[in-house]
Amino acid sequence: MNALQSVSKTILMGPGPSCVHPRVYEALALPTIGHLDPRFINIMDEIKVMLRQIMGTKNEITLPMSGTGSAGMEAAFVNLVERGDKVLVLVNGVFGKRMVEVARRLGADVEELEFTWGTPVDPDVVAKKIKEKNWQIVAVVHAETSTGVRNPVEQLGKLVHEAGALYIVDAVTSLGGIPVEVDAIEADLCYSGTQKCLSCPPGLAPLTIGERAISKLKNRATKVPNWYLDISMIMDYWQGAKRAYHHTAPINMIYGLHAALSVVLEEGLPQAYARHQEMHERLVQGLESIGLTLPVDPQFRLPMLNAVTVPDGVDEAAIRRALLDTYNIEIGAGLGPLAGKIWRIGLMGYTAQKENVDLVVSALKNILKH
Amino acid sequence: MNALQSVSKTILMGPGPSCVHPRVYEALALPTIGHLDPRFINIMDEIKVMLRQIMGTKNEITLPMSGTGSAGMEAAFVNLVERGDKVLVLVNGVFGKRMVEVARRLGADVEELEFTWGTPVDPDVVAKKIKEKNWQIVAVVHAETSTGVRNPVEQLGKLVHEAGALYIVDAVTSLGGIPVEVDAIEADLCYSGTQKCLSCPPGLAPLTIGERAISKLKNRATKVPNWYLDISMIMDYWQGAKRAYHHTAPINMIYGLHAALSVVLEEGLPQAYARHQEMHERLVQGLESIGLTLPVDPQFRLPMLNAVTVPDGVDEAAIRRALLDTYNIEIGAGLGPLAGKIWRIGLMGYTAQKENVDLVVSALKNILKH
Repeated sequence: MNALQSVSKTILMGPGPSCVHPRVYEALALPTIGHLDPRFINIMDEIKVMLRQIMGTKNEITLPMSGTGSAGMEAAFVNLVERGDKVLVLVNGVFGKRMVEVARRLGADVEELEFTWGTPVDPDVVAKKIKEKNWQIVAVVHAETSTGVRNPVEQLGKLVHEAGALYIVDAVTSLGGIPVEVDAIEADLCYSGTQKCLSCPPGLAPLTIGERAISKLKNRATKVPNWYLDISMIMDYWQGAKRAYHHTAPINMIYGLHAALSVVLEEGLPQAYARHQEMHERLVQGLESIGLTLPVDPQFRLPMLNAVTVPDGVDEAAIRRALLDTYNIEIGAGLGPLAGKIWRIGLMGYTAQKENVDLVVSALKNILKH
Repeated sequence: MNALQSVSKTILMGPGPSCVHPRVYEALALPTIGHLDPRFINIMDEIKVMLRQIMGTKNEITLPMSGTGSAGMEAAFVNLVERGDKVLVLVNGVFGKRMVEVARRLGADVEELEFTWGTPVDPDVVAKKIKEKNWQIVAVVHAETSTGVRNPVEQLGKLVHEAGALYIVDAVTSLGGIPVEVDAIEADLCYSGTQKCLSCPPGLAPLTIGERAISKLKNRATKVPNWYLDISMIMDYWQGAKRAYHHTAPINMIYGLHAALSVVLEEGLPQAYARHQEMHERLVQGLESIGLTLPVDPQFRLPMLNAVTVPDGVDEAAIRRALLDTYNIEIGAGLGPLAGKIWRIGLMGYTAQKENVDLVVSALKNILKH
């Protein structure tokens, strides 16, 4: 069994995973120690501090869940939803749709308010909808990875709280690439993933939960119907003096996350955001110079996830295959209704470098010529 | 933030994580590639083949879930339990108790049949209990990590199927250290973890599911109330031609698992089992030579997890701390009712080496003298 031998350095310019920072690889291969080892507890404590900074929150309970970004979404809803809860999901892409599915499976009474994919959630429409019912939860995706659209999470937070609901924000793709600022946008629960702008492999879901959401969690009529992701127990392992064993933490992935967060903070958050924006502008310019267009209105574009219209008559999958086979560059396909219509070019974390931007543009130019 | 610098090679002789094989560390640090990259699909395919061998099954659906061993337990119950299902859990330690909790939270009508901790589940008692109701599911832990007891999974399988129930077996600690043989013991769903006898860090839960269980899964009246762990969707990513994206696989952990499974199969399963047994006997002999005793009856002992009675008047935590501080050896404490009464010495996977056995015995001898 030797498929591992085929693995080689690849320029990951899809919707994630993104390129991993060399220091993260080093950290992944550090010797495994025990999940109750005092040295490991220190690593956990430092991660909480760094995550709070990057997520822009003072929330005590700010920690990585032991699963990928999708486990973060599952954790958000399974901890806060009780059967019959009225949940409003603001949808403008695949990941909003996924929220609907996750919440419905948990027995929530879910309504989705859908906006045209490729355009942002409109706060005025939300303001009206929010008055229709006594929602328990309103949820939105900050950076919709399926379309490359940025949603106005700050305006929505105020609306949600005026209505007395809890506010769940998906920051899987945004964290580290644009400001998330959990406290400023008033998110009650916000989760992310490691494999986007944090330059770490997939496997963990940073999550933060504030007082209002903790209060709902603690006052549930029924236990969280998911032992593995029950935040009320997981926090006893991550906080306090006792550090009660819950499940065995994914030690080496946690090392990787520690290194990744350090790298982000050493660069500086403003600098990281500026780099993502600059590389995005460079990419747009490059793509336009070879005749490609971006379907999303410039003011709503995400810097780290660029939807690009597939030109008429072009076999989009063949282009992606050629990029991978000839240039060792991975870009993403469209999902759902956008399959075949767009490519998704990611500029996330360590991927967001001049050389990568210039390479993907020149590679696309060469391949599309043929 | 520099807590990572404190990490150093540690001899992990607790209940897991165990020592990681050098080839696994190398694999963890291989360049991340995409989760839909054809090279990654090959790695997944090889993992399925290797896992089937090690788990002793022909089940098509044999794959790692994206979470730790506890996520495997969660996946087992959440996929197979529907609200109101009658579930019988055979309990003789912490992990049996955890099964009860996981199943109850999912709305199952759970009964636990408890046996004295430190003794095995008794098939004669089970045979009677099983006739009391039309159970949908019977579950047991193969290697009870909290006590070091091996349960007779082969005899139980027959009883469960005579009664027409589905049989869930937890092989978190047993897999790779003693034969699991899923098909021979007639397990309908069996899950494990990477951080025990597979010599890989924690983070994945190998799981296999057979025809009967798949049939129950496919005929559920309601969707699996856990999107992240829904095997019916995950199998579409791991099987077949289309490889539909579900969630982003934890790429580098999957590399690590591939390397770990290769290492196990290169040594050979019979050889690996013999090594665990030999090291266990060497450890028992060593411990007895310094006056320590093991509470579990020899015929029911697990080779990879050895419960050791804490001598009267000894501060068990101080001994563990001294082992870690002075000898860089981690051993485990007792859990639940056994806290303070036993140590747990693991001989799992790469940890099960002569040098480690001899070192822990001589270290204990030195520390206990003082």
